[in-house]
Order: sequence, then structure tokens, then C-alpha cells
Amino acid sequence: MTYCVAIRLQDGIVFASDTRTNAGVDHISVFKKLYTFGIDGERSIVLLTSGNLATSQAVVKMLENGVKLGADEHILNAPTLFDAARMVGSLVSQVARESQARAFSQESFGSNFLLGGQIKGQLPELYHIYQEGNFINATEDTPFLQIGEAKYGKPILDRSLNYRSSLEDAVRAVLVSFDSTIRSNLSVGFPMDLLVYRNGTYHLPKGIRIDANDPYLHNVRTQWSDGLKAILHSFSVPPDYYFE
Amino acid sequence: MTYCVAIRLQDGIVFASDTRTNAGVDHISVFKKLYTFGIDGERSIVLLTSGNLATSQAVVKMLENGVKLGADEHILNAPTLFDAARMVGSLVSQVARESQARAFSQESFGSNFLLGGQIKGQLPELYHIYQEGNFINATEDTPFLQIGEAKYGKPILDRSLNYRSSLEDAVRAVLVSFDSTIRSNLSVGFPMDLLVYRNGTYHLPKGIRIDANDPYLHNVRTQWSDGLKAILHSFSVPPDYYFE
Repeated sequence: MTYCVAIRLQDGIVFASDTRTNAGVDHISVFKKLYTFGIDGERSIVLLTSGNLATSQAVVKMLENGVKLGADEHILNAPTLFDAARMVGSLVSQVARESQARAFSQESFGSNFLLGGQIKGQLPELYHIYQEGNFINATEDTPFLQIGEAKYGKPILDRSLNYRSSLEDAVRAVLVSFDSTIRSNLSVGFPMDLLVYRNGTYHLPKGIRIDANDPYLHNVRTQWSDGLKAILHSFSVPPDYYFE
Repeated sequence: MTYCVAIRLQDGIVFASDTRTNAGVDHISVFKKLYTFGIDGERSIVLLTSGNLATSQAVVKMLENGVKLGADEHILNAPTLFDAARMVGSLVSQVARESQARAFSQESFGSNFLLGGQIKGQLPELYHIYQEGNFINATEDTPFLQIGEAKYGKPILDRSLNYRSSLEDAVRAVLVSFDSTIRSNLSVGFPMDLLVYRNGTYHLPKGIRIDANDPYLHNVRTQWSDGLKAILHSFSVPPDYYFE
């Protein structure tokens, strides 16, 4: 399993993914699920992936090879992010279908992708691309998109973020969202990868890998747990009719 | 879908369930999923159910009929809660298997149950009974059990409760857990049913149905959202290396 989230805000886009892959609980590995494609000053694109690791890696490798081998159309010359999302969608459905056709079992070979970023002169965009190759994009009403084990970490994002939230607030909420998910599901694990793109910079920072011992994460985790308990205690006592 | 939770604490057991059933998003109804069986002063048993409604209702009706028709063995003369859980498990696997044998499709006819309470002279117990008829019980390490749409509402229970928490704290946490779930999943809906059993009373309070306009719930919801945002803001600013 996996947990990835991307949040498109008015100031930029926050991308985060865990790094755990597993084939059964006795076969756990660390794999990067966050990939970047960019031309400094012209375009910045980040890709997050969940689902079948072989499919995800094949799609990423095909995107990279398209650039390296100078294909007519590749992710660094796609005219818009919409076109880049179509490219990823077409690759994932093709790769997954090929594996499915050769399958010995009912196993799923699909992958999901979050693709976000900005091309010079265009607005920043964020897409969720499904294994069938179709996709949706984030709006001001729904600024964040998740793939993988999304449920445990969704309430905190729902309650605390909107399109006008700051990038700093989004990073705080993302850390809590990951910590909640990782506590609840063994198949999602630290370290996590985090990358923050600021709108209009057309520059990708190198991003950071945050492990379970990161001091800031540790503070967030402790303050969060203590804070939650304090809020619960600050509620007035439940009314008598709750106990009758 | 459904969301039910039961929390066995040193002072008693908190039971809660939503009341929404759906067959597709255009066929939504309110159905009770919390049932009580008791002899005042001798035993108190509460049953929560999720899954196929026809199966759940058949099991409950068979338990009730067993008592009414004076079967040799019924839920009000089961010597222990373990025996009561076996009775429920045997009924659910039988009912589900019968429906499955007549099925026209791959639909699932299974149900899950939480069964908790106390019989005089015995310790309080709480069981999660699976559709196959087997079951697990809550321990001091894992005081709460959930069935149905459990993920959205789990982190708050994980972070705020342990076996020594008060019943009042558990009620507060349960309200937040339900509110988070209901916000995130359309197939879980208010009103919710809540019942708190105090250990050693062998008496079942009538319980309360809490609708979306309940004033205490409203306060909890508002204070919770505001409180979460306040904690997030109280974190120090994420370090610079998060943005590089």
C-alpha cells in the first residue's frame, strides 16, 4: 500500500508520499514514489504514484526515456499539463493492460498517479490519473487529492485546509495526516518524501526525505497528541441525557 | 455502509452506531443497528451490526424469537458472553451461507457484529463477531472495536483513548470519531445511537438517538474544528530545509 497526497493552494502545491512497498507483511521495502520532471525557469512537474510498483516504475521509466531519447512528444515538451496527464494516463492503461493480459491470477496491475506543477505562462494544475487513463483535476473547492490508503489521513485535511491556506499550514497538516495514516496502517511507512512548489517560480526544490526521527516531525506528533487530548477535555461534560 | 464502535473501559462500555443504510446512493434509509437484550439486575447485552441488512435483521430476529418462544438455549440464558457470541456467530454464518447458496450474483450476504455487556458475577466483555462465525475480544491493550467504515474515525480513538479513560472522555471521542466519518463518507449518516453501560449495574439505560442538530454535538463539532486549527497554528513554523 501507499499514501500520497498533493494540495494545490493559491501560493503553490505541496506534494508528499510515503516510501513503503510491500508484497505481504514479510516483504517490505523502501521505494521512492515521488518523481520530478522539469526545465528550470520553464516548467516544473511532480508525479506521485500508488498501486502496482512494476506498473508505476514502467510508466516513470517510459516518461524518462521519452525525454532522454528525444521522442517527438515527451513530458518536457507537452504543451500543457493536461497533455502531460493524458500522456501518463495513456501509458498507465497500456502497461496495466499488457500485464493483465499475461496474468496468472486476478491480481490488479493498475496504478494511480497524482501529477501537478506549472508550465510558464499557464496556471498551476493538479491531476489524479486513474489506471484506466482518465483523470480529474483539483479545484478551489477540493484543493487536495489523495491516492493509496487515503482514509485515515483525510479528516485532518478536510477540517483544516482550504484553497487559501498557507504552504506552511499545509505542510503541518500533511505531517499530521501522514502520522495518522502510518499509525493505523502497517503498509504505509516512514520515511516520507515532501516537496513544496511555489507558484510562478518554475523551479523545483530538491525536496526532503523526512524519517521517523526528524525533530520537527517529532514535535508535531507530540504536540498534536497532547493538543487533541486537551481539546477533548475542554469540551463541557456530555449532558446527562447521554447516559440515561 | 455503516459505522459502529464499542469501547470497553474500566468503568463501562460505550456503544455507538450510525443509522444509515443504502443500496446505491439513491436508496437511503434510517435503520436501527443497535439492539439490546437484558434482564435487569442479571445481564445486559448490546449488539451492534454492520453489513448486509437482511442478514443482520434475520440474526437479531432469531435471537429475539429464541427468547420469546422459550428455546432451550437463547441469548438471555447463555451461561457466558462467550456463549452468546458463539450463538450470534453460528446464526450469522448460517444465514449468510443460505443466502449465498441462492445468490444470483457475487454479492456479499455477510454481516459483522459487536457484542458487549456483562452477566452477573462475570467480567464485562466485548466481542467482534465475523460473518464466518468466529470472533475476537477487546483487551486492555486494544479497548475499542469497530465495524463498517472504520478508517476515518480511527485516528482520534487511537490517539485519545486507553483502557483507563473515563466514560465521559470516551463519549466525547466517539462523537468526534462519528463526525469525522460522516463528513467523509456519504453512506454513513446521522442520527447516531449511543448507549453507555456502567460496569456492575446489570442495567441497560435506554440510550439516546443523537441527530445532526443535537446542541452538544454541535458544540463538540465547532470546538473540535476550531481547536484543530489552533493546534496546527501553535506548531512552530516548519524548518527551512522543508522548503529547499
